[in-house]
Amino acid sequence: MTIQPQTWDEVAQQKQAANLALIPDEWRIKTAQSVHVLDVPTTCGVLSVAELDITETPAAELVERMRKGVLKAYDVVLAFAKRASVAHQLTNCLSEIRFEAALAEAAALDDHFATSATLKGPLHGLPISLKDNFNVEGLDTSVGFVAWSNDPATKETESELVGTLRSQGAIILCKTNVPTAMMMPETYNNLFGYTSNPHNTRLSSGGSSGGESALLALRGTPFGVGTDIGGSVRIPAAFTGIFALKPSYGRFTTHGARSGLPGQEAVRSINGPMSSDLSSLELWTKAIVGSEGWLTDPSIVPIPWREITLPQKLCFGLLVDDGVVKPLPPVLRALERTRKALEAAGHTVIEYTPYETHLSIDIITRLFRGDGGVKIATVIAQSGEPWPEGLETYRDTYEALKSTPPTVEKLWDTQMVRQLFVKKTLEHWMATSGRTGTGRPIDGLISPTTPWAACPKYGFDLHLPYTSTWNLTDQSATVFPAGFQTPEDVNAEGYVGRNEREKRVWAKYDAEESVGAPVGLQLVGLRFEEEKVLKLTEVVMAALEKA
Amino acid sequence: MTIQPQTWDEVAQQKQAANLALIPDEWRIKTAQSVHVLDVPTTCGVLSVAELDITETPAAELVERMRKGVLKAYDVVLAFAKRASVAHQLTNCLSEIRFEAALAEAAALDDHFATSATLKGPLHGLPISLKDNFNVEGLDTSVGFVAWSNDPATKETESELVGTLRSQGAIILCKTNVPTAMMMPETYNNLFGYTSNPHNTRLSSGGSSGGESALLALRGTPFGVGTDIGGSVRIPAAFTGIFALKPSYGRFTTHGARSGLPGQEAVRSINGPMSSDLSSLELWTKAIVGSEGWLTDPSIVPIPWREITLPQKLCFGLLVDDGVVKPLPPVLRALERTRKALEAAGHTVIEYTPYETHLSIDIITRLFRGDGGVKIATVIAQSGEPWPEGLETYRDTYEALKSTPPTVEKLWDTQMVRQLFVKKTLEHWMATSGRTGTGRPIDGLISPTTPWAACPKYGFDLHLPYTSTWNLTDQSATVFPAGFQTPEDVNAEGYVGRNEREKRVWAKYDAEESVGAPVGLQLVGLRFEEEKVLKLTEVVMAALEKA
Repeated sequence: MTIQPQTWDEVAQQKQAANLALIPDEWRIKTAQSVHVLDVPTTCGVLSVAELDITETPAAELVERMRKGVLKAYDVVLAFAKRASVAHQLTNCLSEIRFEAALAEAAALDDHFATSATLKGPLHGLPISLKDNFNVEGLDTSVGFVAWSNDPATKETESELVGTLRSQGAIILCKTNVPTAMMMPETYNNLFGYTSNPHNTRLSSGGSSGGESALLALRGTPFGVGTDIGGSVRIPAAFTGIFALKPSYGRFTTHGARSGLPGQEAVRSINGPMSSDLSSLELWTKAIVGSEGWLTDPSIVPIPWREITLPQKLCFGLLVDDGVVKPLPPVLRALERTRKALEAAGHTVIEYTPYETHLSIDIITRLFRGDGGVKIATVIAQSGEPWPEGLETYRDTYEALKSTPPTVEKLWDTQMVRQLFVKKTLEHWMATSGRTGTGRPIDGLISPTTPWAACPKYGFDLHLPYTSTWNLTDQSATVFPAGFQTPEDVNAEGYVGRNEREKRVWAKYDAEESVGAPVGLQLVGLRFEEEKVLKLTEVVMAALEKA
Repeated sequence: MTIQPQTWDEVAQQKQAANLALIPDEWRIKTAQSVHVLDVPTTCGVLSVAELDITETPAAELVERMRKGVLKAYDVVLAFAKRASVAHQLTNCLSEIRFEAALAEAAALDDHFATSATLKGPLHGLPISLKDNFNVEGLDTSVGFVAWSNDPATKETESELVGTLRSQGAIILCKTNVPTAMMMPETYNNLFGYTSNPHNTRLSSGGSSGGESALLALRGTPFGVGTDIGGSVRIPAAFTGIFALKPSYGRFTTHGARSGLPGQEAVRSINGPMSSDLSSLELWTKAIVGSEGWLTDPSIVPIPWREITLPQKLCFGLLVDDGVVKPLPPVLRALERTRKALEAAGHTVIEYTPYETHLSIDIITRLFRGDGGVKIATVIAQSGEPWPEGLETYRDTYEALKSTPPTVEKLWDTQMVRQLFVKKTLEHWMATSGRTGTGRPIDGLISPTTPWAACPKYGFDLHLPYTSTWNLTDQSATVFPAGFQTPEDVNAEGYVGRNEREKRVWAKYDAEESVGAPVGLQLVGLRFEEEKVLKLTEVVMAALEKA
């Protein structure tokens, strides 16, 4: 038998078809009639009333029901498998499906509980979704590359986090779509196509963890894990109205996750939990930290879970404008609404000007393209797939530098500049202590996540410093939902912009086109303040709910 | 007036003369008669009986006397200034002297105490020595390069640690000699010359913190700070019979210290305390950690000081031979003596084979020469000084690669190999739990620091993996004195060696020549276990004292 070489698009079609074939016929739905598809899981008839209830219950409560013996892990996994199937049909969010294996694992957990009357761990029986770059036995780890689409991970190559999650009782349900190489803030690639935003399918679900965000906004799993090297957990969370935590590097294991820039260590990719409910982030974080990952992954810092008691009166910094691209009207309105809500709750909010946005952009751009784009170019070339539009800057870098690739000497120079930038950024933050009235520096910083509410497809203009600055400095941050774009969010002042990039962003803005787009804001803390930013986010959400 | 350009050796002579001129005539001593000069401070007549007592008292006790008002900071600083002067004349250990400024600062501290009856901090009035690469206002930071020998630091460029030490009450007394670029395990350069070992001035004091070690072995200060990227705190401590702590990166601030490889971040240089007494390491560490450095230096991890309670029965690993260069007879004897002492004290000692020594050597070599030697070559060329013998491998790398400098792409590949090496090393360590009998993995690892007791001058053969492996893995470690080379340490078995390097080391060995050379062993812990390795070192020293 002769093996026919396949073209890249034949490989892609086959992969997509194989994926869809893992969704049973009775879980198929009709094409959605509206661009707003959030209610389809409820109306499509695939899930029973009981299953809808399960999928709309926070993770901690599901575990509690399993502890009491009134709910079986099998039923939990089945309900979420159905809902994830619906979510995929609506947004194209899944890259890998393991419903059958997950159901078998759930049944085994139920047996364990029946005989021992104990849960396996704090995440017992909870189905979880993982961004595509985590290696899971038997599944491919394509990371959006056609060339990597048929290379299943083995038990030996599984990501450390997968073992950790399993040891805590979680069940891997599926993996989710990413942009090629995960180096774009929207989720599309030549292998799986585009992942849409369930709030408005004309919009982006963000990237690079945009498969996760689309799935979680539709509650296709109770929580999932994304990765973030420049905003890749936070941007998709913001675009889909969900919560996310970006930790400092060394808090959660990243060992054995596939990178789009393998071996690049100047800016560390981290992973963090994402969920439609805030409480699930804490449940996940406590479980992962409690697993003492430093005993198996040497990059983990031995900081145990720390309970936080916040002072009654807090002072937040408010970053409204990074000086390069001013946020669009819905984001400005959300910032103002959050400020008023915090003040109404008795807290103080002071203005915060970022430290040198242009420098932040320059450093991270140099570090991401440190290899001259060779690594990405090599994998693109392997399958013959075309460069995705959003990776054009990498292609241009590669073409320009391929005969004189960047040297380590120059990298060291950039790293010196970065060291100073990070130090100055911290000093800039600490200097707020003279203005807070609390005797402390700001307790947390409220900031845009991007200039946009969820942007139109292919509309992101690669303006990343609202998020990527905190990757350079390795600070902890959350994203929380802070409203939606409405028709009232017109550009009332006729703002044009201070530079070409800003002019493009504001010129493209259309209050009507993106109506319903979620606005997610960022809450930034210092390095290794994961527990604190989670607690501060509770304060902000309580204030917003009362406002 | 025409400025005459100076040759590199004129610059060096002038710098050395200027240094010596800062030592008053009445602190000058006669040339030592013996190669063993440890007793000269006692016999030379420069220090009074009271001053000898001060300089032989542990730091914590000195602070206690100042707290009680029975001792003045001025007298403490004066006594150590005299002793440091003597030490310098015996070993050529100082690079920068600030006795006058230190005495003035001590007088100011005494005024503070007289009016407030409070100490400035836990290190109140203690003179401290710093390795030359720390920037101290008004002093040069030559790092052994002639080109950098006239470039005094300013208040603004001072190293972060200097401010921290001052805020804790310490007084900077002097800076100490280093090898050129600090990338050699013996301390010599074209600017200041060679730093000798006070136990036997024919021997090396180690490197790169070999000015510190010579000074501290002579108790020229109660403690000092070295830096370590491959063994540079531990090797000199071992060679001079003193104690040292190598922390994990991120425990003590390194910001603003000058590097021989500026911007190189793949293997992080750390700094750690060195002292003739173990208790001073803990005093220093508690003070530095207690200063909450993470509030000013973003590279510091917010781990507060943790009190350690050790189990009564411990199990130590014993690494005798790295498989490439077996330690010489005095080191083997010290290892055996330590094993017996620990067993006699009721602990268990099990054999430990290191994980892939050749790979460890290969990775760190590639990372240190990551830039192709350009950075060092550039500074060497600036003054026209010749390459020091011990930097020949860097010169050869530079000459071989200057037309095709190493690319970032290849660095990323090396970093991938390193990530796996570090992970496997941890797994290898944790796998001991099946053999310890305690249910835990080994509590600490006893290991040689180098194959030598203090080596003859220019005798170090660049075999570093006993120390440098723990830089790759970023683990914490101490060095403790474990005896001396004696005439009985002959190569009784006529051991020759398994490879060229080992054959050279063993062929050069002469039991008589290096008699009196101290043997220092290493005690290695996991990452961020600084408190634990200090406590374990107390256990080992108690056992050795009883043996």
